[in-house]
Amino acid sequence: MERHYVFWSDLSADYRLHDQEAYDKWYGWEHPHPDYLNKSVFGVPELHREEIKKAQLVSCPGCMAVTSMLALAPLIRNNIIDTDHIVVDSKIGSSGAGSGSGTAHAMRAGVIRPYKPAKHRHTGEIEQELSEIAGKKIHVSMSPHAVDVVRGILCTNHTFMKKDMEEKELWKLYRQTYGEEKFVRLIRDKKGLYKFPDPKFLVGSNFCDIGFDLDEDNHRLIALSASDNLMKGAAGSAIQNMNVMCGFDEMDGLRYTPLTPV
Amino acid sequence: MERHYVFWSDLSADYRLHDQEAYDKWYGWEHPHPDYLNKSVFGVPELHREEIKKAQLVSCPGCMAVTSMLALAPLIRNNIIDTDHIVVDSKIGSSGAGSGSGTAHAMRAGVIRPYKPAKHRHTGEIEQELSEIAGKKIHVSMSPHAVDVVRGILCTNHTFMKKDMEEKELWKLYRQTYGEEKFVRLIRDKKGLYKFPDPKFLVGSNFCDIGFDLDEDNHRLIALSASDNLMKGAAGSAIQNMNVMCGFDEMDGLRYTPLTPV
Amino acid sequence: MERHYVFWSDLSADYRLHDQEAYDKWYGWEHPHPDYLNKSVFGVPELHREEIKKAQLVSCPGCMAVTSMLALAPLIRNNIIDTDHIVVDSKIGSSGAGSGSGTAHAMRAGVIRPYKPAKHRHTGEIEQELSEIAGKKIHVSMSPHAVDVVRGILCTNHTFMKKDMEEKELWKLYRQTYGEEKFVRLIRDKKGLYKFPDPKFLVGSNFCDIGFDLDEDNHRLIALSASDNLMKGAAGSAIQNMNVMCGFDEMDGLRYTPLTPV
Amino acid sequence: MERHYVFWSDLSADYRLHDQEAYDKWYGWEHPHPDYLNKSVFGVPELHREEIKKAQLVSCPGCMAVTSMLALAPLIRNNIIDTDHIVVDSKIGSSGAGSGSGTAHAMRAGVIRPYKPAKHRHTGEIEQELSEIAGKKIHVSMSPHAVDVVRGILCTNHTFMKKDMEEKELWKLYRQTYGEEKFVRLIRDKKGLYKFPDPKFLVGSNFCDIGFDLDEDNHRLIALSASDNLMKGAAGSAIQNMNVMCGFDEMDGLRYTPLTPV
Repeated sequence: MERHYVFWSDLSADYRLHDQEAYDKWYGWEHPHPDYLNKSVFGVPELHREEIKKAQLVSCPGCMAVTSMLALAPLIRNNIIDTDHIVVDSKIGSSGAGSGSGTAHAMRAGVIRPYKPAKHRHTGEIEQELSEIAGKKIHVSMSPHAVDVVRGILCTNHTFMKKDMEEKELWKLYRQTYGEEKFVRLIRDKKGLYKFPDPKFLVGSNFCDIGFDLDEDNHRLIALSASDNLMKGAAGSAIQNMNVMCGFDEMDGLRYTPLTPV
Repeated sequence: MERHYVFWSDLSADYRLHDQEAYDKWYGWEHPHPDYLNKSVFGVPELHREEIKKAQLVSCPGCMAVTSMLALAPLIRNNIIDTDHIVVDSKIGSSGAGSGSGTAHAMRAGVIRPYKPAKHRHTGEIEQELSEIAGKKIHVSMSPHAVDVVRGILCTNHTFMKKDMEEKELWKLYRQTYGEEKFVRLIRDKKGLYKFPDPKFLVGSNFCDIGFDLDEDNHRLIALSASDNLMKGAAGSAIQNMNVMCGFDEMDGLRYTPLTPV
Repeated sequence: MERHYVFWSDLSADYRLHDQEAYDKWYGWEHPHPDYLNKSVFGVPELHREEIKKAQLVSCPGCMAVTSMLALAPLIRNNIIDTDHIVVDSKIGSSGAGSGSGTAHAMRAGVIRPYKPAKHRHTGEIEQELSEIAGKKIHVSMSPHAVDVVRGILCTNHTFMKKDMEEKELWKLYRQTYGEEKFVRLIRDKKGLYKFPDPKFLVGSNFCDIGFDLDEDNHRLIALSASDNLMKGAAGSAIQNMNVMCGFDEMDGLRYTPLTPV
Repeated sequence: MERHYVFWSDLSADYRLHDQEAYDKWYGWEHPHPDYLNKSVFGVPELHREEIKKAQLVSCPGCMAVTSMLALAPLIRNNIIDTDHIVVDSKIGSSGAGSGSGTAHAMRAGVIRPYKPAKHRHTGEIEQELSEIAGKKIHVSMSPHAVDVVRGILCTNHTFMKKDMEEKELWKLYRQTYGEEKFVRLIRDKKGLYKFPDPKFLVGSNFCDIGFDLDEDNHRLIALSASDNLMKGAAGSAIQNMNVMCGFDEMDGLRYTPLTPV
């Protein structure tokens, strides 16, 4: 038990990337303590639970990164999508997007604003994690947009299938990956307004809701994932990681479930 | 002059598609008057002005279709993008998305809701128009999302370049295509909050604002286009077409320019 | 126990008023079963708990009525305000105000709309209850306004004091009245953004939050009360009344407490 | 012509009050240049046009003050209301209410927040102007509330009539006062959603819309007034005053009329 004295569930972006070159590229400056980069564990228990249990330094993920990668991981792991054309189109509220004068009410009300269509830093995290799963370098095409909500992310993960699969096969893959997970919910309602994930119904909770739709014409699989960027996307992840690191019940402090519409 | 007596700038979706098979596929029923389908002109003056001048039946475009195709047309015409992976991710307000109980305030407030991730009807229109420009069948991957605004569309058109081009070459293509157009504005501000099109600043106007960003890592060109779905996306288009058909000044009745932020 | 077989916690407005003449005036038609009017109990446990316990017919209150009267009752009971000039200015969200086309998102977004400045029906309920407390006929001047939220009411109850009182004396009156109540919370924070009740922080809960401010120049006491119109204002009241009628724990099914800001 | 060299349409609150004692009371400190206080003209052309023409220093009004006083002035001038019980309940958007952290989007979204129920500084301006009209000291009971819009004020001015009057007599008084005014519009539609003033339809314009309703039970006259706090409430007033001072057309730079609903 070497972990008695110091361990850390880190909310900053300082140790999310394991590779110094990647860090310098995405952040635009040299990391002052590169020796720690490959000692930190990327803090998504659904992907790294066993490592987190033993880690001294866990780096909590970017909100858009974790929301997107949870939808994409099963597709990469099962090698069913074209990894050259992964388009992640994200929509996020004011507590997640930007800072400075852009946070004022007048600047947020009523917008649908692309704010970093290319080269957003969270891309590096998604690429790192999916590449690790794939066993090869994977590129991700991410574009975030600011919309007029306070909390919430929706990631529309557009992917192209290597060969066509049926909906039920795909649900099976998702269930195999997340069937035991407490904080991932699989969503599909055949009718009604709430057929797909919508972050409106996740505010205050640590859930990541995942669903998908199929566009057979284009062999496209649209994986949809939603979360509250202040919970599963940040503070909630930090608590979930702490719970795993300390051997607590993983749900402690995170049991809140908002009302969902009927 | 055979057009003396009857001509029509049609706001419905009845005659947008020229091909009966395509109509039946996208609309799910048989067209009762298929003989008119290939007599109608698709009502986007920026693409079909000369035909509209002589047309008896002009079919005004779907709001998401026209907004997207104006951003994509120059890229297709100049043959610079991979036509197998065109992802159109649209975000639209309550006056454009859906009907029924979904239009109630409570159902719209605070959502980021995917509502037809695959097989949305406007896809057929974009494919028809871009295929005509390309001279070959083109597939488009479109997914619309409802967000909490009343009027406005943003289309994030993710494309992959055949070979890398510089930003200024791309601006040149857009200027060549739309330099003389009254209702297309090219948007790029290097700094500030308003670097890219945002439909917030188009409400009530007939403009389609177009901009783009480059993601060199993925050879991705993100073409961004915004409009007011009740103007350029519908009623504004109908008036613009009428003006062209009748030989009026194309801007008549459409000169309103909302305040834009500094 | 004569209540074995039939008793009722009624959500409609049919039996709120005990007086047939008042009913006919506020509703504009003749009540078809006036004999039940004075058999029903007005369903606010904070005012009529003992009667509700024994009632067969309990009529749940109007949302604006209950929210307003809970703030005003202690002032009337203690005979400290001028009962000729009670101005209740209410602000309410789309789930409480109006119906018809007015519920569409486009009609609600961005409004601050007076919708029945005089003669709103809930006035009759407030007058009935306050008159009963006062032992004399009391008139209330109520004006509701629609604002752009989904759930929530704020009542600004402007009253004029018969003689000046200090803040702490007034708090004492409120504590005496509601100190034991589970669903009434007294709010006053000397600094910060949340000095007074705000329905934003009550969505989904059965609380009525009450606070006040003093305008010594005008001998005015501004009693502020907030609730979720779908809970304490309607469905929540119905459950609370059922609990009282059936001898259940009054909080059963109503324990939800939303997060409040720090 | 003594005004050749220096004259000023002042946007600050420094010279709105003419009385030093009043200034010190409402602002909480001693005015450093009290000698200018009674040299400035209160900048509401509808009340002081002739004085403004000759003024060297015009002080533009507070946004809630001007919106409220325009509704109340005809009632005071004609001596028809009880001046001891004037309740002004104001609702205002984020560009008008407050500053500091309260302007952040998260702090504004979804609120109905009383923010200064008693002793708001604009009260002093309303009292000064109405007292001048009345020829006696008048007290006003004002309470502002923050709601979730960016621009706009609605003032619900609750007044009690000395003796009952008919609606058409009241309209006559308003028409007599404002019939020739370019920036005051009288609003009453017997049916539809837009029976009363709503600032939603004034954004960007210099209009103050005024309407009223009668509550005969309480001899109450509810005068409703709406404006865009950034126009008639501030910058628009400054321009209007400048136009009057300089002998320009009073509407210069202020002709924008937003679309109104049918």
